[in-house]
Amino acid sequence: MRSHNWSQKAMKKPDELEIIKIFQHRFGHGTKFVPEDLEILSMANQNFLAKSDMLVQSTDVLPGMTLHQIARKSLVSCVSDFACKGVKPRYAIISLAIPSGFTRKMVNELADGFAKASKEFDVKIVGGDVNQGKEIVIDVSMFGIGDEIVRRGGARKGDIIVTSGPFGYPSSGLKIILGKLKTSEKFVKKCKKSVYLPTPRLEFGLKAARYFTSSMDSSDGLSITLNDMSKISKKRFVITRIPTEKDVKAFAEEKGVSLTDLVFCGGEEYEMVATIPKENLSLVKKIAKRLGIPLFEIGYVSSGEDVVLANNKRNTILERCGWVHLRS
Amino acid sequence: MRSHNWSQKAMKKPDELEIIKIFQHRFGHGTKFVPEDLEILSMANQNFLAKSDMLVQSTDVLPGMTLHQIARKSLVSCVSDFACKGVKPRYAIISLAIPSGFTRKMVNELADGFAKASKEFDVKIVGGDVNQGKEIVIDVSMFGIGDEIVRRGGARKGDIIVTSGPFGYPSSGLKIILGKLKTSEKFVKKCKKSVYLPTPRLEFGLKAARYFTSSMDSSDGLSITLNDMSKISKKRFVITRIPTEKDVKAFAEEKGVSLTDLVFCGGEEYEMVATIPKENLSLVKKIAKRLGIPLFEIGYVSSGEDVVLANNKRNTILERCGWVHLRS
Repeated sequence: MRSHNWSQKAMKKPDELEIIKIFQHRFGHGTKFVPEDLEILSMANQNFLAKSDMLVQSTDVLPGMTLHQIARKSLVSCVSDFACKGVKPRYAIISLAIPSGFTRKMVNELADGFAKASKEFDVKIVGGDVNQGKEIVIDVSMFGIGDEIVRRGGARKGDIIVTSGPFGYPSSGLKIILGKLKTSEKFVKKCKKSVYLPTPRLEFGLKAARYFTSSMDSSDGLSITLNDMSKISKKRFVITRIPTEKDVKAFAEEKGVSLTDLVFCGGEEYEMVATIPKENLSLVKKIAKRLGIPLFEIGYVSSGEDVVLANNKRNTILERCGWVHLRS
Repeated sequence: MRSHNWSQKAMKKPDELEIIKIFQHRFGHGTKFVPEDLEILSMANQNFLAKSDMLVQSTDVLPGMTLHQIARKSLVSCVSDFACKGVKPRYAIISLAIPSGFTRKMVNELADGFAKASKEFDVKIVGGDVNQGKEIVIDVSMFGIGDEIVRRGGARKGDIIVTSGPFGYPSSGLKIILGKLKTSEKFVKKCKKSVYLPTPRLEFGLKAARYFTSSMDSSDGLSITLNDMSKISKKRFVITRIPTEKDVKAFAEEKGVSLTDLVFCGGEEYEMVATIPKENLSLVKKIAKRLGIPLFEIGYVSSGEDVVLANNKRNTILERCGWVHLRS
């Protein structure tokens, strides 16, 4: 998971991205290796799809988050990765570290959070591992099968770029919670819900992904997601509309913070970003409408490279921005 | 993983076993639920087999253990579970938390440990998740397939009980390392190797498991393993020979510690315990001999319940003993 721990010592140490590169190099993945939202394990002529995601208390848990919400969120990350690939997650295994002094009540609250999330997403929890550690760490592994998955890198010239919902609420929420900012009660509530109870678009993904040419989970942040998709697809992504709502814009103006930062550099949205051939768009819009998904058409794919913001008739390149673990 | 952290506050909090019970109850596993060494995920008429195991620095890492050894050991636990079920592990996913301040050299040492262990056990590492946390936490998920696996609960009356190697070296090693005990250099070296570089009996398991009626990984400790197998099989396990070596016995005598404790209540052996019908025994012994596995015949299965030690013509019941996480 990404982190909101903004207080780190300045040190010349390898960050998350460099560490991943070191690992990929040592594990012999080769230069053609393209990371995907799900790991594809080919066995017995089947594609077994798996994803592991680790939640760490000191970097992923916000003040005010309940154990119930922590347990639920540890499943949400994996569910979101399955959603954006259009694959039904079936089973989960949970590895857990908890500090000494955890009471029965606390354990029950965690268990309840896992059990209810398991029901909410229809994922069966089949086992796990319980350990003692210095802080809460929950690593969820989730499993499904699928012959073909939508890739991160399949965007084609002329495709429409969509997101499955608005961006900017979690990053506004972080500012409100950590900076103790005051603003309208309604907006605070909306932002906190986006942070404490994020909900991936599972049903939409399962129904709509077959009409995408590419897709990716956006929880690392919209700029990172768009840049990864553009780079792997070897296409230019032109963004003509910022996927957000009036209240986020009003919050940005009120507090004098950059709307672009809130929307593109935040993360934790658990929305999917997808590219759709024009001929499939009306079908996908129908599915979204039926499921109450606020689909945003945010731009189009062209030849070239980079992600560009085409607001105000001027193109500016949207660089990767957002949280990177272990960056000093 | 089990733990050697013996300094805990005395508190009336739920321990690992109670926590697992709470989880199993809440996840709706029902009263007939029997835990196995591997999780069995049925999808598309295939049995996908998976196992996750978490290593936590503050409870699983001994003084003097290198990052290379830590990385390797995080894979060993899962490999051992696959070994005792006779299933080839094919793929692994690694979720990682590391503290800030980790240098490039440290990351490279971890990566090297993972890569070499991946080669040693012929398991392909396909992906992972890198996070920042208060201590090193490595959660390994490992995957394979198999139509049928040997169960923990299949022991039959008359079966011979075997272990794939001697017990007592890791617990002696813990006493030597943590208690700074002095004894012969040769024995210290052997014990430290068993702690820092445990090696599961993968090839033996793959070749021999088909001749077992039941089997289980012993890394939680021999008494726990035998008691679990006896209870699930609804049979009495009669132990007529303590699976250990002369040097462990000599160490126990020299230091005035209980040999039974060292052998049965330690853990971390990564040996398999199996029950074998008499007619299969010579075949299994042949396989063991060819692979250089020091097979120990330690007793037999009879009707009844409990695990009994039948040394010196007197039967004493062997209770569950050993480490339990979060026990105060």
